[in-house]
Amino acid sequence: MFDLNQVDDVEAAVAGVRAEVAALHAELVRYGLVMWTGGNVSGRVPGEDLFVIKPSGVSYDDLTPENMIVCDLYGNTVPGTSGSDRSPSSDTAAHAYVYRNMPEVNGVVHTHSTYAVAWAARGEEIPCVITAMADEFGGPVPVGPFAIIGDDSIGRGIVETLAGHRSRAVLMRNHGPFTIGASAKDAVKAAVMVEDVARTVHLAREAGLLVPIPQEAIDRLYYRYQNVYGQSEDDRR
Amino acid sequence: MFDLNQVDDVEAAVAGVRAEVAALHAELVRYGLVMWTGGNVSGRVPGEDLFVIKPSGVSYDDLTPENMIVCDLYGNTVPGTSGSDRSPSSDTAAHAYVYRNMPEVNGVVHTHSTYAVAWAARGEEIPCVITAMADEFGGPVPVGPFAIIGDDSIGRGIVETLAGHRSRAVLMRNHGPFTIGASAKDAVKAAVMVEDVARTVHLAREAGLLVPIPQEAIDRLYYRYQNVYGQSEDDRR
Amino acid sequence: MFDLNQVDDVEAAVAGVRAEVAALHAELVRYGLVMWTGGNVSGRVPGEDLFVIKPSGVSYDDLTPENMIVCDLYGNTVPGTSGSDRSPSSDTAAHAYVYRNMPEVNGVVHTHSTYAVAWAARGEEIPCVITAMADEFGGPVPVGPFAIIGDDSIGRGIVETLAGHRSRAVLMRNHGPFTIGASAKDAVKAAVMVEDVARTVHLAREAGLLVPIPQEAIDRLYYRYQNVYGQSEDDRR
Amino acid sequence: MFDLNQVDDVEAAVAGVRAEVAALHAELVRYGLVMWTGGNVSGRVPGEDLFVIKPSGVSYDDLTPENMIVCDLYGNTVPGTSGSDRSPSSDTAAHAYVYRNMPEVNGVVHTHSTYAVAWAARGEEIPCVITAMADEFGGPVPVGPFAIIGDDSIGRGIVETLAGHRSRAVLMRNHGPFTIGASAKDAVKAAVMVEDVARTVHLAREAGLLVPIPQEAIDRLYYRYQNVYGQSEDDRR
Repeated sequence: MFDLNQVDDVEAAVAGVRAEVAALHAELVRYGLVMWTGGNVSGRVPGEDLFVIKPSGVSYDDLTPENMIVCDLYGNTVPGTSGSDRSPSSDTAAHAYVYRNMPEVNGVVHTHSTYAVAWAARGEEIPCVITAMADEFGGPVPVGPFAIIGDDSIGRGIVETLAGHRSRAVLMRNHGPFTIGASAKDAVKAAVMVEDVARTVHLAREAGLLVPIPQEAIDRLYYRYQNVYGQSEDDRR
Repeated sequence: MFDLNQVDDVEAAVAGVRAEVAALHAELVRYGLVMWTGGNVSGRVPGEDLFVIKPSGVSYDDLTPENMIVCDLYGNTVPGTSGSDRSPSSDTAAHAYVYRNMPEVNGVVHTHSTYAVAWAARGEEIPCVITAMADEFGGPVPVGPFAIIGDDSIGRGIVETLAGHRSRAVLMRNHGPFTIGASAKDAVKAAVMVEDVARTVHLAREAGLLVPIPQEAIDRLYYRYQNVYGQSEDDRR
Repeated sequence: MFDLNQVDDVEAAVAGVRAEVAALHAELVRYGLVMWTGGNVSGRVPGEDLFVIKPSGVSYDDLTPENMIVCDLYGNTVPGTSGSDRSPSSDTAAHAYVYRNMPEVNGVVHTHSTYAVAWAARGEEIPCVITAMADEFGGPVPVGPFAIIGDDSIGRGIVETLAGHRSRAVLMRNHGPFTIGASAKDAVKAAVMVEDVARTVHLAREAGLLVPIPQEAIDRLYYRYQNVYGQSEDDRR
Repeated sequence: MFDLNQVDDVEAAVAGVRAEVAALHAELVRYGLVMWTGGNVSGRVPGEDLFVIKPSGVSYDDLTPENMIVCDLYGNTVPGTSGSDRSPSSDTAAHAYVYRNMPEVNGVVHTHSTYAVAWAARGEEIPCVITAMADEFGGPVPVGPFAIIGDDSIGRGIVETLAGHRSRAVLMRNHGPFTIGASAKDAVKAAVMVEDVARTVHLAREAGLLVPIPQEAIDRLYYRYQNVYGQSEDDRR
């Protein structure tokens, strides 16, 4: 299909995404979102029908740019590229489905972070009762269908739930959160924030009645955060 | 308005506050009060109508004295000062309102720390049932009004709630804690302690009935802690 | 019985297990599963009727390959080996019983990790309501009998509960989790994961009704994870 | 009264306790038992009517053997000793009362650790439902009276509650845990373990009915742990 060794630009682009994706996995550890080898981050290679993802079952201490794995948009490893002799994350098919069907998405993250999984085990969406959640997700964090690994059903569940939704996070039922983003970093931020709001709203609700935020205020907060916060388009997410 | 390059004393004062405010942000990380780029600390420049605050949407790993931003008491950045080409924290207007209206306040902190936000999402004040809370806050931690970013309403809510109150912390409804202090460090201490008491009282109450502390004991504890604890006036807070 | 000084191969095998077992204790600390000197990991010496275990009551900071203790399958220290002048873990008899009765087990771990002990204090098994749990344990995590230290009763309780069970973890009633594995590392992974699922299912259930996972899906998930996940047989666990 | 400069043995003994007490404070931080400058450890100087304690309101980062403070058994600083120009911990009177009235106690620790304070805010003792608690405390952890700082009432409450009790920890009502030990390290261990059991039993009970442990089993566990665990008398605690 393509020979990366002859395409310098693609090589450089892949190398950049390898470095970014490898480094972003450390954020999952820093924020306590993953245990042992669970969880995975991927990033789309700009301008190519490729993405970079973590190998399956490898310790977070051992992740390097070189052992990240390059896949096409059907989740096949690209022969001849570094790491292609190993198996990519067992969630690769779900990531690939998202990249294939959501061209605006350039990063995907999956974790089993504690509180987000707890909401998922009840199949319950997280209501939007704090302003940080309105900023980040623009409303509730929705629940996706129960789907098990092995075919396209997880990817399809993610896309059908998030298409047209403000939220960049979905809680797949009995499973856990998947997040998407304009970049891999943005998807990691969404993974950090969905656990944060899952925890805060869990604790708030177990102690009494939540005060709702008026929809109009949610809309204003979301609009402002997406357009004004940070230093530039890039920081905004 | 003023040319910092010609005023050596102001320059030195600003440099000191830049260093202090940059360093204090690390305490928010150490105590787990912030996620990603959320949260902010500011400090008033002694003797000047200026304060120093964090830039918007910048990673905690990247904060330095030089990229802190100098603002006047209306939240405008001061042209020609280091960092003035970037946007200050999106909560700058609230900090500015506090400095303008509470001359005794020299530091302001805002976080979305988990348990404090949980009380805020219910619009419920934290009752004073532990001696550490009587020491530090002299009574319950109050709730401020629901107010959204974009004008003076957050700053006004903080000032109206805390003016004349012993507590240096307010839980802005559906939003989170703002704390004030005689110094930036004092405001950071209040941010650490408000999360600590929010967590402890949350856990205490979910397991049964709380034993109240008599008002007279609260008064004595507060008086003693504010006047006897620590090595000097400065350590006391 | 045996003179290790004359058996180079055994010496090398023991040295390997010493290094592995000493290093794996750091994972218990990293994942917050142990306090002070509590908790212990052991590993079977391949091809020998020996295992290596932590000394009793020694700080995690002070564990080295040399102070690990070599025991026979009745829990007696092996005279003349490094560390044999000290007492092995007070749980050595339970480890020995498992190695004696479960030849397929090459690693055993015991902790008092918080949430797993909480389920044990109620004598309640952890229901399988999240896919990560189906992957890892293939169903619920069972409860073993109340048994106290001093004879074979803890070991017997572990073996009787886990023999023929998919789960590699058992919650000994009022006591805490014991985990077994195809290797010491595998048993440590099970100790990490049992605390993770104990915490997640605890939190999920305290907030509402759990959605069950159909048995057929549990079976498929377990089969796939045990046979497809990771890079090789070794990574799979 | 005594001139430390002329008594080499006392000087050496004091220096040893200074180093031990300064270092043990780091364990309070490591196990998350303290916030900001809260919490304190003290150790008796062997053979002398003296103990060493932390200065008041000083950051944990800044504690050194030299700035620990030497006090007599009435809590007075000893003139001419290093650190005697500063104020000792505001809990010094309580420590002094314990040393004066419990000659077998050589270490005292006080923290506001989260879960222990939560039980204290309800004035509720922690029931003994896990074997680790039977090992360490030999039964329930008792509650002491409400008493506020400023006279002997906290010290008296500790001594009256713990005299003749197996537990080395007491939960002072609305305040928090104080622990005692045969050494300062032993008292720190008790502070770590009381928070651990406070957390575990809190979580266990919020999810359902606890299974009691028969008194006879508690007695056997306590006896064994106090006499057999560890490498020597010293490790046992």
